[in-house]
Amino acid sequence: MQKEKNNYTIGIDIGGTKMSAILFDGSKILADYTLATPQDTVDHVVIMIGALIDPLFERAKEDKIKIKGIGIAVAGIVDFKNQIIAKNSPNLEILNKIKLAELIEKRRGVPTIMDNDANCFARAESVLGAGKKYSNIYGLTIGTGIGGGWFVNNRIYYGSHGGANEPGRFIMNGEEKVDLEIMYQKLTQHNLFKLAQKAYRADALAEKAFDDIGELLGIFFANVVNLIDPEIFIIGGGGLEACDLFLPKTKKIMKNYIMNPESKKKIKIEKAKLGEHAGAIGAALLVA
Amino acid sequence: MQKEKNNYTIGIDIGGTKMSAILFDGSKILADYTLATPQDTVDHVVIMIGALIDPLFERAKEDKIKIKGIGIAVAGIVDFKNQIIAKNSPNLEILNKIKLAELIEKRRGVPTIMDNDANCFARAESVLGAGKKYSNIYGLTIGTGIGGGWFVNNRIYYGSHGGANEPGRFIMNGEEKVDLEIMYQKLTQHNLFKLAQKAYRADALAEKAFDDIGELLGIFFANVVNLIDPEIFIIGGGGLEACDLFLPKTKKIMKNYIMNPESKKKIKIEKAKLGEHAGAIGAALLVA
Repeated sequence: MQKEKNNYTIGIDIGGTKMSAILFDGSKILADYTLATPQDTVDHVVIMIGALIDPLFERAKEDKIKIKGIGIAVAGIVDFKNQIIAKNSPNLEILNKIKLAELIEKRRGVPTIMDNDANCFARAESVLGAGKKYSNIYGLTIGTGIGGGWFVNNRIYYGSHGGANEPGRFIMNGEEKVDLEIMYQKLTQHNLFKLAQKAYRADALAEKAFDDIGELLGIFFANVVNLIDPEIFIIGGGGLEACDLFLPKTKKIMKNYIMNPESKKKIKIEKAKLGEHAGAIGAALLVA
Repeated sequence: MQKEKNNYTIGIDIGGTKMSAILFDGSKILADYTLATPQDTVDHVVIMIGALIDPLFERAKEDKIKIKGIGIAVAGIVDFKNQIIAKNSPNLEILNKIKLAELIEKRRGVPTIMDNDANCFARAESVLGAGKKYSNIYGLTIGTGIGGGWFVNNRIYYGSHGGANEPGRFIMNGEEKVDLEIMYQKLTQHNLFKLAQKAYRADALAEKAFDDIGELLGIFFANVVNLIDPEIFIIGGGGLEACDLFLPKTKKIMKNYIMNPESKKKIKIEKAKLGEHAGAIGAALLVA
């Protein structure tokens, strides 16, 4: 008996400047589209999401396979339980307090769920990427800011009130109360790419900045290990390409500050494998 | 039909200077004894544990109830999976790398399991103490040092390599790489009681120190919330009595740095309820 084919899903990744959508068959991307994120009204966002996913519905129709659901990854704090954007990302002000998934579900008649983009990244890399051999994975996205998600026992851990997975808010300097993201942004001067270009040209100040970024992340990772002891950290996001400039230092510093001998020996840091669509894949997996 | 009565357990709490044992019926302590912790040989420790628990076996015999098992709480890093003391506490050097539970089990013929003392504290307070209405609890012990355990979904979370629950190792000052325990010990000058006495006499320096301790713990708790978002923190250990000198500040600072609005609103900090035998109770619950 042939299995009913309704295993296509759509994953949408909504960032501050652009948004993309993929048609996903559970293991690979069949089609993808990208558009600019509208900044004016929620209606406009909903309409443009329609424009993004219409051709994916068409493609599914051609393949004679039903779309099972739509997952949405959103930059910002998503109240996953109540499916509402609890706090917008700086560039997504119009989406604050919006039940975006519900709006899409009403329009398309397909089950739609949304989640924070870093959680989607962590889910995708855990299920299909660098973490697929592991069961306790901490995913960290670095780019303009810092995000993260903890995937353990086959699911994202959200915490009791949905407040887990805010690594950017981690206070790294108790006296001055400066958090990880702010320290990172100060070191990158809000432009990791420019800094990386300088470092590749052997600019001493840029090299020093990457040394400091390596140390900063190493201490953060050690703290995470001493608290929740995952098997592996996966680093992704826009800053992935600059990883080699700081990862050796991160690994060294991390190991210096891990207490448990077994954790110190076994903990891994790996680069993400799924590329730019990891967030959309993690969103698609929400409804798989 | 009468239920078979074999529900007595023994809980042992081994600290650097003293060790105590309780006979436990699953909800209350029926008898307890305390002795000094031998510092010379493992054999001596095993013999004195025998002296501690012999009268408890006698008492169970009088009650015609079998001892189901023995749980041991040990100060230091316990490799729970392999049931070996992986790293001793400063005052328990002779127990380093010792399979203490196995030694006791061989002598008494009763299933014996050991765990770290802060985990035992967290388990006891979660199951029977200040956390019994909650399912996601972070227990913190403060005294000469700082320990902790995370109890979630009805069990202690140990991490992938047994390396979780080392809050004392949390780096609170990234630049100087000073951890929570060292900063705490610097503020208490290794004597919380003396400092508390001074503060109760309105000594301005001592009051300032408690203000700083409150702030330090507030930032630590905010970091824990932004990472794992528990429902409640329970504070216990030798420093419990000094809690009122810093808890108001801790709560205020913690809330300042929690990102998620729902977590900020709902997170609680409570004092432990089970008293000095919480560790032994948590050990007894290991075999319940």
